[in-house]
Amino acid sequence: MFLFFWIMDLLIGICKITVSVCAAIWYWNTNKTVSIYGGTFWKGAQKAFLLLMENSQSTTIGYGSKIQGTSKVHGGPLKSEETANVKKIFGLDPTKTFDVPEDVRALYNSITQKGINYEKEWNSLFYKYSLKYPEEAKEIRRRLRGDLTKGWEKLLPKYTPADKPMATRKLSEIVLNNICDALPELIGGSADLTGSNLTRWKTAKDFQVNDSGIGDYSGRYFHYGVREHGMAAVMNGISAYGCGFIPFGSTFLNFISYASGAVRLSSMSKHQVIYIMTHDSVGLGEDGPTHQPIETLASLRAQPNINVIRPADGNEVSAAYYQALTSKGTPSVICLNRQNVPHLKGSSFENALKGGYILQDEPDPKIILAGTGSEVSLCVDAAELLKKDNIPSRVVSLPCLSLFDAQGKNYRNEVLPKGIPILSVEAASTFGWAKYAHMSIGIDTFGLSAPAKNIFKHFGFVKEAVAKKAKFLISEFPKMLH
Amino acid sequence: MFLFFWIMDLLIGICKITVSVCAAIWYWNTNKTVSIYGGTFWKGAQKAFLLLMENSQSTTIGYGSKIQGTSKVHGGPLKSEETANVKKIFGLDPTKTFDVPEDVRALYNSITQKGINYEKEWNSLFYKYSLKYPEEAKEIRRRLRGDLTKGWEKLLPKYTPADKPMATRKLSEIVLNNICDALPELIGGSADLTGSNLTRWKTAKDFQVNDSGIGDYSGRYFHYGVREHGMAAVMNGISAYGCGFIPFGSTFLNFISYASGAVRLSSMSKHQVIYIMTHDSVGLGEDGPTHQPIETLASLRAQPNINVIRPADGNEVSAAYYQALTSKGTPSVICLNRQNVPHLKGSSFENALKGGYILQDEPDPKIILAGTGSEVSLCVDAAELLKKDNIPSRVVSLPCLSLFDAQGKNYRNEVLPKGIPILSVEAASTFGWAKYAHMSIGIDTFGLSAPAKNIFKHFGFVKEAVAKKAKFLISEFPKMLH
Repeated sequence: MFLFFWIMDLLIGICKITVSVCAAIWYWNTNKTVSIYGGTFWKGAQKAFLLLMENSQSTTIGYGSKIQGTSKVHGGPLKSEETANVKKIFGLDPTKTFDVPEDVRALYNSITQKGINYEKEWNSLFYKYSLKYPEEAKEIRRRLRGDLTKGWEKLLPKYTPADKPMATRKLSEIVLNNICDALPELIGGSADLTGSNLTRWKTAKDFQVNDSGIGDYSGRYFHYGVREHGMAAVMNGISAYGCGFIPFGSTFLNFISYASGAVRLSSMSKHQVIYIMTHDSVGLGEDGPTHQPIETLASLRAQPNINVIRPADGNEVSAAYYQALTSKGTPSVICLNRQNVPHLKGSSFENALKGGYILQDEPDPKIILAGTGSEVSLCVDAAELLKKDNIPSRVVSLPCLSLFDAQGKNYRNEVLPKGIPILSVEAASTFGWAKYAHMSIGIDTFGLSAPAKNIFKHFGFVKEAVAKKAKFLISEFPKMLH
Repeated sequence: MFLFFWIMDLLIGICKITVSVCAAIWYWNTNKTVSIYGGTFWKGAQKAFLLLMENSQSTTIGYGSKIQGTSKVHGGPLKSEETANVKKIFGLDPTKTFDVPEDVRALYNSITQKGINYEKEWNSLFYKYSLKYPEEAKEIRRRLRGDLTKGWEKLLPKYTPADKPMATRKLSEIVLNNICDALPELIGGSADLTGSNLTRWKTAKDFQVNDSGIGDYSGRYFHYGVREHGMAAVMNGISAYGCGFIPFGSTFLNFISYASGAVRLSSMSKHQVIYIMTHDSVGLGEDGPTHQPIETLASLRAQPNINVIRPADGNEVSAAYYQALTSKGTPSVICLNRQNVPHLKGSSFENALKGGYILQDEPDPKIILAGTGSEVSLCVDAAELLKKDNIPSRVVSLPCLSLFDAQGKNYRNEVLPKGIPILSVEAASTFGWAKYAHMSIGIDTFGLSAPAKNIFKHFGFVKEAVAKKAKFLISEFPKMLH
């Protein structure tokens, strides 16, 4: 087996999972059993890794130049004299630049012809296959085109306020249970938090060694271990492989920062991968500040080409999955909470796809409460309080700021018109909210370890505090100049 | 040797550097040579790691309960019946809660007394030492108090516009050359980019094995290798150790995201560590999008308790170091550029410490150009162009938004008054700028690989484009409602 890898993959924290993959491939090829996540794995990985290290060949950077093997040839380009030397060593004309010798051109052209022949052969074989197995062939064509199974979106559940309140991570589990059989291209897992992320659908089979009794190579569920960076890198790799695969990976929202390097590449390389991130605020409670995201939403929203979606209830969770599964070339981060939230009056699958919409409204509103995720129902409760004080208000749900920004100016002005004070409510850093709101309720310190209820009260995420701040903003607004 | 470590340290990307440290300690203790960064290291690390793995003892999670060794006892607290069982096994009264048995209390009290005795002994020894070595004792006292060497700040260079233009990373090197001998508590290194980060001061000695010929254990400069996460974690560890050590670490700004987990802990655990991050924008040129930070500044600014400082010229670089070295309990990120920038008229060490200030002004300005780092001189050039068109303007330098936010409201309103249009100019994501500016020139896509000049032109970072946008904002401003 030949395995080429860039030494920096090992250095920049993808180390362990790279070793795992080495081990998996090695043992797979040699017909010895290895489990991706099991007691026998580590010893296997060690052995495989040592074998790899012992048999590996290093290359020489800048080979052929006088400064070969030094850092000088890493940081800067070769000087023209040096370039000429290297060309001579490889039998090229040192006076020519950007020149392709005729024999090289001929070799490449012959490869093109080979490729054309291979494709013809494959097409002919596939044609015969499609006559014998028409259903399977149809499915392969669908996958290669990157289309989703027809009608899959009808499997996304819709809710009314009469439905039982539920945590959005639980609503996400219901979506996965509903769609994963219809979409065999969905292939996912969790970084050691399956039981908390609720990402293993009912009919899932684990990706494990055949005959292990706990899964097989047809399995689509991965136990990544506590390896967020590796998980995201593997997801990018699966997406790059093509064939319509849409990988998802899961952990607590705060821990996506361990995977930042690979998450950035998801966006840059236009991989349609889905990060299912649960425990998305201080509302996770007792685990405390080390587990509670504060700057995480802002960090992700500042990144180009990524949709950060924080749904408020059942309909918005369905919309989040619809958006993520139809966003070719764009990764999504679906942020889900731990505690139960009600299904809201006015919540809408279709409107959520616009990134932001008027959830509830009153004539001539004096204040707009704009929230995301679990804070939208809090805005609704605060609006009720304001109503008792004869202050008409509007509640806006903003599940995805990048999608909202992509709407026309008219629509955005309709939802968040000029001249009405806007108060944003999100249990996270207020950084970035000044673009949408005149004042913000948020958390600009690290969190706390306590029951969720106490934490929310401490940081002002109770309806009384929101209503009070709304009144304050209404009184300050006339004095605020732009 | 006993080594306790949390398995997650190995899993979450700190792997390699942890192994390095294992190896270093192991070989140090056994008197066998090992170099932290050299050809002999990897084999040594491997051996040490295998020895560690073979001799390591695992613990059992939830030991004594019926669900010991399972994931159930990881995610949730034990039920009261289970807790009672565990207490019985350990010989405690199962009916008592939050109870400290008398024998445990007595043992702990005896330890307190031991500690008091040890401290007395040490104080007496140190008193004798201070009589014999008064200068050394004074220095130890200074370090334990966490004071900096008296007068160190006089070593920070000041500049005038007559001084030669220079890249801020080069100006940073001058500061390090000036102060590192006077501040032996500064201990730093780079993640394999010393030659680009310019962080190795002239008199630096490498931290290496004694008698290696390339440094010794008294060395204060670390070659971390391409291990950003490990570097930041080691810096936190050195800071936590105390004794006044102030660690710095260096890489390209974009690669700080590999260290996000540890950078977050710098803030949360209040470690005074300094991240010296060079190549801080698309201006790094040919290395292209994978190396060019876009969302990085916003990501860091959204984090609580961290000062992100992006100095514009020599005086501001000196201010950045002054701020970082006097910010006890707060980490700093100093963002430095690659290309030369002029020393600006109006630039001020004292004002830069306020995070933002009026650099240049004209009577009754019609527009405020607010920039950071290398874009401040661009604002100055654009202001010149506007002047030719009889448009008076103000240029504001904002090297550190968190420091600026911490100033009084009056000062902030003086620098950025209401009623005058403000245009922000920063070669990075515009995310977060709406708090300070009415329009922003920034980059909300990934970068490009090209010479810096071409990239800046492409993204509108030339004086003509800035002046044009300024005029556009002036014309739009009366129509803009808040």
